[in-house]
Amino acid sequence: MKKIALILSGCGVYDGSEIHETTMAMLALSKNEVEYECFAPNKEQYHVINHLNGDVTNEKRNILVESARIARGKIKDIKELQVSGFSGLLLPGGFGAAKNLSNYAFKAEDFTVDEDIANIIKAFHTARKPIAALCIAPVLIAKVLGARVTIGNDMTTVDIIKSVGATHVNKEYHEIAVDEKNLIITNPCYMLADNIYQVSLGAEAAVGAMLGLMKK
Amino acid sequence: MKKIALILSGCGVYDGSEIHETTMAMLALSKNEVEYECFAPNKEQYHVINHLNGDVTNEKRNILVESARIARGKIKDIKELQVSGFSGLLLPGGFGAAKNLSNYAFKAEDFTVDEDIANIIKAFHTARKPIAALCIAPVLIAKVLGARVTIGNDMTTVDIIKSVGATHVNKEYHEIAVDEKNLIITNPCYMLADNIYQVSLGAEAAVGAMLGLMKK
Repeated sequence: MKKIALILSGCGVYDGSEIHETTMAMLALSKNEVEYECFAPNKEQYHVINHLNGDVTNEKRNILVESARIARGKIKDIKELQVSGFSGLLLPGGFGAAKNLSNYAFKAEDFTVDEDIANIIKAFHTARKPIAALCIAPVLIAKVLGARVTIGNDMTTVDIIKSVGATHVNKEYHEIAVDEKNLIITNPCYMLADNIYQVSLGAEAAVGAMLGLMKK
Repeated sequence: MKKIALILSGCGVYDGSEIHETTMAMLALSKNEVEYECFAPNKEQYHVINHLNGDVTNEKRNILVESARIARGKIKDIKELQVSGFSGLLLPGGFGAAKNLSNYAFKAEDFTVDEDIANIIKAFHTARKPIAALCIAPVLIAKVLGARVTIGNDMTTVDIIKSVGATHVNKEYHEIAVDEKNLIITNPCYMLADNIYQVSLGAEAAVGAMLGLMKK
């Protein structure tokens, strides 16, 4: 029985998981009759953004509690994630990946990945279980594993991916980069997509390739 | 040029718009190359639910600001909605429809619909522009227009729909009820669906029928 672990980082593009990317990934899994389970760090978000006007607010929100909104309450603390229970790992994008799962949004080339997240990525990699990452989340994989990834074609991001010892390949919104050696699948999603349908095509392509790699 | 107005009610199944239903409706529209614009009431949510444990919290959140998370910031105050600019109206479900757009969740058969929402529903109806409603949102249409709708087969809800002078027809998760006289399309979504793929089928069916009714 295939089961995928999804790592969420909040609920909303500017301070958490990008909602469309997350639900399009869930849809692609569900359509393929693949189970998934959601996880998120049980700690405070880096900050809370008012998504109407872009302002940073004074609120405090917990990453796990907010991620539960996308997961309809079915979500666990990332510390409970056991690699042995899953066939693969999927990280949707959104600024949460760059603010809550890493500090990429603030440190650029000097960024680091949250220790729990880095350990999970390493554990799936060591177990030869595929890892898919969407939008900006591939920078985390680049940093932790030095793999071959795509985030589309944004040169600032590409240069940082190269600076941490990884390889970047330019791709369109509907295309994926597949690192067969490391079992890494990446897609640009909203780094390039203009609408939710284009995001769904990227998420479907990534999930399809992920399922294919599980057979190897 | 077809353009649909989407009315959101927050961000999260227990106190706002159901995220999967909303994004699956957006996907169905986007896939059909139909534009949409999001609107929500600019006022405080009835309450805020911690989606991890189900508790009511002490927080205050604004419906429009939270809805902006699903809309990626592209959303307007419902008071700016001009019926003349749109070909149809779509209301996703989630408890927000029953707590923020109406008081159905608390008043049962004595419920009332928010005045702005009721006026918009009436205006689309009068203009002979189709209205689609998902999950629990059809109760609002039932109350305002007395139309023929489905919420699946939940007998408590069905009895209330009948008590407000509307007609209910039982449907499965992938089926829609179409009131051709009033141009109302309804689907049960998570009233019956077991997963996001099933929700996508319902949303696609509803959007497809809505587009068909626009030609008449």
